Amino acid sequence: MNAKMQWLRNKMLSLDLQGLIISNPINVKYLTNIDAEGVLLLTRKENIYITDGRYIEHVHSILTLYDEIIVYDINDVSKDDYENFFMFCENVGFEENYVTYAEYKELIRKYKVNNLVETEHIIEKQRMIKDRDELKNIQKACEITDNCFSYILEYIKPGMTEKQIADEIEEYYKPRTDGLAFDTIVASGENTSKPHAVPTNRKIGEKDIITIDMGCKVNGYCSDMTRTFFVGEVPEEVKPVYDLVLKNEKQTLEQMKDGASTRMLTKMVENDFRFSNYDLIHSLGHGVGLEIHEAPYIGLKSDTQLKENMVVTDEPGIYLPGKFGVRIEDTVQITKFGCINLTKSEKNYIVI
Amino acid sequence: MNAKMQWLRNKMLSLDLQGLIISNPINVKYLTNIDAEGVLLLTRKENIYITDGRYIEHVHSILTLYDEIIVYDINDVSKDDYENFFMFCENVGFEENYVTYAEYKELIRKYKVNNLVETEHIIEKQRMIKDRDELKNIQKACEITDNCFSYILEYIKPGMTEKQIADEIEEYYKPRTDGLAFDTIVASGENTSKPHAVPTNRKIGEKDIITIDMGCKVNGYCSDMTRTFFVGEVPEEVKPVYDLVLKNEKQTLEQMKDGASTRMLTKMVENDFRFSNYDLIHSLGHGVGLEIHEAPYIGLKSDTQLKENMVVTDEPGIYLPGKFGVRIEDTVQITKFGCINLTKSEKNYIVI
Repeated sequence: MNAKMQWLRNKMLSLDLQGLIISNPINVKYLTNIDAEGVLLLTRKENIYITDGRYIEHVHSILTLYDEIIVYDINDVSKDDYENFFMFCENVGFEENYVTYAEYKELIRKYKVNNLVETEHIIEKQRMIKDRDELKNIQKACEITDNCFSYILEYIKPGMTEKQIADEIEEYYKPRTDGLAFDTIVASGENTSKPHAVPTNRKIGEKDIITIDMGCKVNGYCSDMTRTFFVGEVPEEVKPVYDLVLKNEKQTLEQMKDGASTRMLTKMVENDFRFSNYDLIHSLGHGVGLEIHEAPYIGLKSDTQLKENMVVTDEPGIYLPGKFGVRIEDTVQITKFGCINLTKSEKNYIVI
Repeated sequence: MNAKMQWLRNKMLSLDLQGLIISNPINVKYLTNIDAEGVLLLTRKENIYITDGRYIEHVHSILTLYDEIIVYDINDVSKDDYENFFMFCENVGFEENYVTYAEYKELIRKYKVNNLVETEHIIEKQRMIKDRDELKNIQKACEITDNCFSYILEYIKPGMTEKQIADEIEEYYKPRTDGLAFDTIVASGENTSKPHAVPTNRKIGEKDIITIDMGCKVNGYCSDMTRTFFVGEVPEEVKPVYDLVLKNEKQTLEQMKDGASTRMLTKMVENDFRFSNYDLIHSLGHGVGLEIHEAPYIGLKSDTQLKENMVVTDEPGIYLPGKFGVRIEDTVQITKFGCINLTKSEKNYIVI
């Protein structure tokens, strides 16, 4: 059994869980490397993956004996099998944040479990701390993102559309990575005031402001970076906003280390923005891994202590509707006494 | 209020629902054209959309007065507001197939609804029957898919990889559509025996078998088509399998019409396959619309009567692990007395 499965089994012991039903395919991939549709059951003694005819061949090609996972075709699992999987298990965990209400009722009916227990993100929490291989993949994804950004700065010329630029980023990533980590944001002019702008046919002007939010995947692991930059010159009205965002991005980086409180980090940025009459209208950051947004959430709504080998973003932004917006974002690896900035592209005024 | 919302409100009356909480973003888009993160509430008298700061501007740019939807910023909604939305509502529906168990508990806590009722796919069922605009979009997506397939038959040359072909299909779609409806399947040689093959670096041979499963989106609406074809010649061992799949694809098309039972359609294909010692290892088809897979499901597990203006696929397939597979799929519009095949590409032996 691999180290991640072993860790999870130890965690189950400490939580008095004798069984676990893992339905979230990202969690299944994290634990087993299986990339299919199915459910992973950790029973008292066995690890069982139930999938259907379409995936059996594929799953067998991924697993080795060392994985100690028994694969079932869902059509061969009888009513009795389901009831036997968790026999003599007092508490069986399920993923209440992934399983729908309808599926929950179905789990109870099918497995006849006495006590189906909410596991409160047990695996998502485990996923927050990255191991060496995971870090390597994210570092690589960030490196390629930096290179792509350098390339795209050379590529952009006035007259091109936002869509054209977004397509070129995708083309750059395609042969080098598993593809986009999320739909690239290329926003220009007043479109930069929309934090989640979708690339349009707006043409880049001779003098313009551009925000690009981009990332790719390497072996399933994501990178995430945003830069706001300028064509021709930096408009005077943008400078104070840019400076304020950059200052806060850098200050947050300085404070990101093992033990830091995510709520406090956010509060400090929010306070500094408020002082200049601006609002922080989205969270300050988020974890990055197999998913582009994963735990920990860095905002005001909840609090987490950053830990060594978490990978998170630092992305303050200010948006003036109908005018312009500025966001600067890095992907960052937390260390014992600080952090390593994995996206290393220039952050001072970039003028092309 | 638009016709779709009006229809839904009438349906609610007949189900004795005084309120409805719509969380599934596809259902929200279907009803309102809003393409954002948020929740749509149908209360006794109002239609309310709650979203967050990132989307407010975008949502306002989509809606008109005629839509009669009140937009709230989630940060401005108080505890009392939540409790007032469904005051005096006896039954409030929620989407038990979309809402997680954790969210369900949160809905109860937040809205203080007496009777939160499972709505059993109320909107998904409504979405099965397409209106004129929806049909136009799907027809367009199918037409472009046919054109793309013609183009790609000319494009493919021995020595190219599966990935290269999949990329070219994406390139073809990009300027003409909203992009891919799903990740294109390009499988060649023994890879065709995997129904959900992911394109690899395998090179197309001088004599080879290729399966392509492809589709695009037009204004959010999908197309879906599969063809299995040949380089050089049709191998003798493949012919009987191809013929059997094609025969069943065509027979199913003939029987697809208003009133047909989806289970019976599947049963007939299954029986015919069994007669030649083959199995139907996946469903026979599925609805197509804003989602590539939506209701109705066409298989053995449940039964639906096809209705006029449903759009579904017809996609029998036979897979011989390690050897080869054949699947042929069309997207089809159901009519009163038959069906219209929207994907019109050649289905007899194609040799390039």
